[in-house]
Amino acid sequence: MKTAITPTRSENYPEWYQQVIKAADLAEISPVRGCMIIKPWGYALWEGIQKELNMRFQETGVENIYCPLFIPMRFLEKEAEHVDGFAKECAVVTHHRLEADKDGKLQPAGPLTEPLVVRPTSETLIGDMFSKWIASYRDLPILVNQWANIVRWEMRTRMFLRTTEFLWQEGHTAHTSSEEAVTQSLEKLDLYAEFCENILAMPVIKGEKSETERFPGALNTYCVEAMMQDGKALQAGTSHFLGQNFSKAFNIEYLGEDEQKHHCWTTSWGVSTRLIGGLIMTHSDDDGLRVPPRIAPKHVVILPIMHNDDTDELLEFCKSIENHLKKTTYHGEPIRVTIDKRPLRGGEKAWSWVKKGAPIRLEIGRKELEQKSVFMGRRDLGYKEKKTLSIDDFYTNITALLDEIQSNYKNQAESFQKDNIQVVSDDKALYTCFKKNTGFVAGYWCEDANIEAQLKKDLSVTVRCFPLDHAEEGPCIFTGKPGRWTIFAKAY
Amino acid sequence: MKTAITPTRSENYPEWYQQVIKAADLAEISPVRGCMIIKPWGYALWEGIQKELNMRFQETGVENIYCPLFIPMRFLEKEAEHVDGFAKECAVVTHHRLEADKDGKLQPAGPLTEPLVVRPTSETLIGDMFSKWIASYRDLPILVNQWANIVRWEMRTRMFLRTTEFLWQEGHTAHTSSEEAVTQSLEKLDLYAEFCENILAMPVIKGEKSETERFPGALNTYCVEAMMQDGKALQAGTSHFLGQNFSKAFNIEYLGEDEQKHHCWTTSWGVSTRLIGGLIMTHSDDDGLRVPPRIAPKHVVILPIMHNDDTDELLEFCKSIENHLKKTTYHGEPIRVTIDKRPLRGGEKAWSWVKKGAPIRLEIGRKELEQKSVFMGRRDLGYKEKKTLSIDDFYTNITALLDEIQSNYKNQAESFQKDNIQVVSDDKALYTCFKKNTGFVAGYWCEDANIEAQLKKDLSVTVRCFPLDHAEEGPCIFTGKPGRWTIFAKAY
Repeated sequence: MKTAITPTRSENYPEWYQQVIKAADLAEISPVRGCMIIKPWGYALWEGIQKELNMRFQETGVENIYCPLFIPMRFLEKEAEHVDGFAKECAVVTHHRLEADKDGKLQPAGPLTEPLVVRPTSETLIGDMFSKWIASYRDLPILVNQWANIVRWEMRTRMFLRTTEFLWQEGHTAHTSSEEAVTQSLEKLDLYAEFCENILAMPVIKGEKSETERFPGALNTYCVEAMMQDGKALQAGTSHFLGQNFSKAFNIEYLGEDEQKHHCWTTSWGVSTRLIGGLIMTHSDDDGLRVPPRIAPKHVVILPIMHNDDTDELLEFCKSIENHLKKTTYHGEPIRVTIDKRPLRGGEKAWSWVKKGAPIRLEIGRKELEQKSVFMGRRDLGYKEKKTLSIDDFYTNITALLDEIQSNYKNQAESFQKDNIQVVSDDKALYTCFKKNTGFVAGYWCEDANIEAQLKKDLSVTVRCFPLDHAEEGPCIFTGKPGRWTIFAKAY
Repeated sequence: MKTAITPTRSENYPEWYQQVIKAADLAEISPVRGCMIIKPWGYALWEGIQKELNMRFQETGVENIYCPLFIPMRFLEKEAEHVDGFAKECAVVTHHRLEADKDGKLQPAGPLTEPLVVRPTSETLIGDMFSKWIASYRDLPILVNQWANIVRWEMRTRMFLRTTEFLWQEGHTAHTSSEEAVTQSLEKLDLYAEFCENILAMPVIKGEKSETERFPGALNTYCVEAMMQDGKALQAGTSHFLGQNFSKAFNIEYLGEDEQKHHCWTTSWGVSTRLIGGLIMTHSDDDGLRVPPRIAPKHVVILPIMHNDDTDELLEFCKSIENHLKKTTYHGEPIRVTIDKRPLRGGEKAWSWVKKGAPIRLEIGRKELEQKSVFMGRRDLGYKEKKTLSIDDFYTNITALLDEIQSNYKNQAESFQKDNIQVVSDDKALYTCFKKNTGFVAGYWCEDANIEAQLKKDLSVTVRCFPLDHAEEGPCIFTGKPGRWTIFAKAY
């Protein structure tokens, strides 16, 4: 069977991924090494993610701010693990103008006395700010977030998943107690999980990272891990309990009710445009992108099938459908609908929306106009299954239909995840699983970092997390010592 | 009379400006030279601006995208005027990691073969993209916009008005004809003017820039100019007709219906966080910020005046007011309301919201609870004028009240602008006006750049624009030659 995407997932998964992005016109490689251009359909996904997360952050008392792009080098040096973690991948600004040399060629000029680093993350700047903003326990907690661009110099990039510049949100909070800070980290982890599952229809495993995989400078990193259709893991979001590391490095102190000075306990948490990579690899098929309705830039696309003699009337009918849908509320917002009037053949036009993954396509021709009906295609049922509905039936059912599509995507992704987690009780079974390349493997592990390093070397497998919903310990599958329940996987 | 802001506007306008920002907690100086930290109340203003402009852009068919932060140096070189305009203020990335030297001090390492410039604007990158995206007249027009951070190295910075890093939107379009491109530029100018006047309550003069003041690489720059309370001009937004300069530099060509290749005609247009500076200086008074309701982060602030014995009941009453208001629609959206429960004295609490400029404050104490009333203060009427309204009257009138406040701000700003434009018919009168420092001066000018330079030297006055609503020519006030109607002013 001919598919819209060549190669298919089974033929060449990484190349299929690039082709889905291209076919849906989500983004493209830029002339700037390692950076991408996010195009309208891709950026609309990001705007949807922003809107949904902003709503959720606000409900938990988080306020948005904006911090500088540049970080003085001395700031980065203050937290030892932090600088170790990021020094190898920093874009460094060393000059503040360009000047023509004697051959007329531009050269950097105006050297800075202190180089500036383009932010790889903002804990250090925030640390400095918190130290100025916080004086007393009455100022706490502080809960802020920013939406920003981030630069980490990457040698091997892949669109949305790993790019030198990416977009993200980073939340930063400060608290009077360790317990409150841990609670905050876990609350945001729950928020991410709920968002991934209900909006992106992407099931995730909530867990804690191994020491090796922690954020540089964190006491503990919590994560949500999703499974892609090739069985690999994608870290969809992280939430860090930073303890007092940054508050000690940056003197974030408060005067307590006891009239003594104390260091704050801080957290940070973030998700990035890599969520879009996760969305693509969770739902798309060999005909292209599939977007769950809750995050779809358009819920319904109306495709007028025009002939010479009935164009006006047909467009009027399409317009009336558009207006009706715009007045219909889906999860608190008007249905997002567009009429595609481009002068393309019907098939070509319909295919373009299949590849973009719009949940519902309506083809409206002379017959539909006469019958006051719509010829509807659902992206979740593939390209071929289409049916005629009376316009009234369509209006009555549209929100239920969108919810049904949302559920279908979620259920499919959940089944896939469930079917591709193998529980093992010895190391041989683990090696066998990964030689077959079958998704996640779960088993007990004693947290020995040497074993972790060996797995990476032998199988390119990493410890993804200790799932939070499985607290009981058991005998390590490698050593027999007491171990924690662990998810192992290859990862993006 | 004691004012919340010291110094007052008449005592020291520039310092008053800084103090208003501080008192309203909009932003603060960051440890990074020339950059600021935008705090929640300030960032919420920016989010409001984004929302309103996005709505308007979308209605005109503009789609949002995101382009890389970095621009290869060779791109900047392609358009000669453009590079001249920006080379002197570019942050240049020359290295991609940090490495400890033998003394353990971090140093830039991993030199780049080609330096990257942090975008001072994105015409060059967009030019490169357009050249790839556009093949045929069928691909045109292209209308895109991005919200992004921008870096221009500034030696003398002032928060919101002039900072090394700032936030903005930049729209970029490509067309098949000069006329269509000019129409697009003017359409976006109208959009900015309508937005400034109706949302920010900030009257603007729409005009065309003199050749000296044009965007580097543009054939024509249109602008909206606002008058601040010290009589200085603020360029609130610009829209550039770029002609074929960038399409020739970047080979943006299309195959026409005539089957011939043609260069496109392009435009770009933008507004930035400096709009917030304009908002502050248009409306604020000696008690701090005043925010027009259409852009206010909160329309109504509820201040419970708590006593020990009636706290629960009082808060419940406040909560019921909050809930009612959240269900009330103001210009298509729920009224934005908050309850301020901070443990501060009533006066201190009320003052904090005066300084932040929230349009309506409700003080709710035992009396109001018993009477089912609100004690209301309106920011547009100053701090002292407050009155008691029954809760039902308040509910009935709230949206009309907000509109009235909006109109008051707009009317005040319009009167101020009108009262501070002096029409002159000779150069002596112009010099006299500016020696008295009285706002804008209007008169005919023959467009001689030497005169422009002289005015700058003598008076620090620049040509702000040729107002679009005054096309007739007249005798130049300097030379008597035919001249265009011109606005002169000192400017931010």
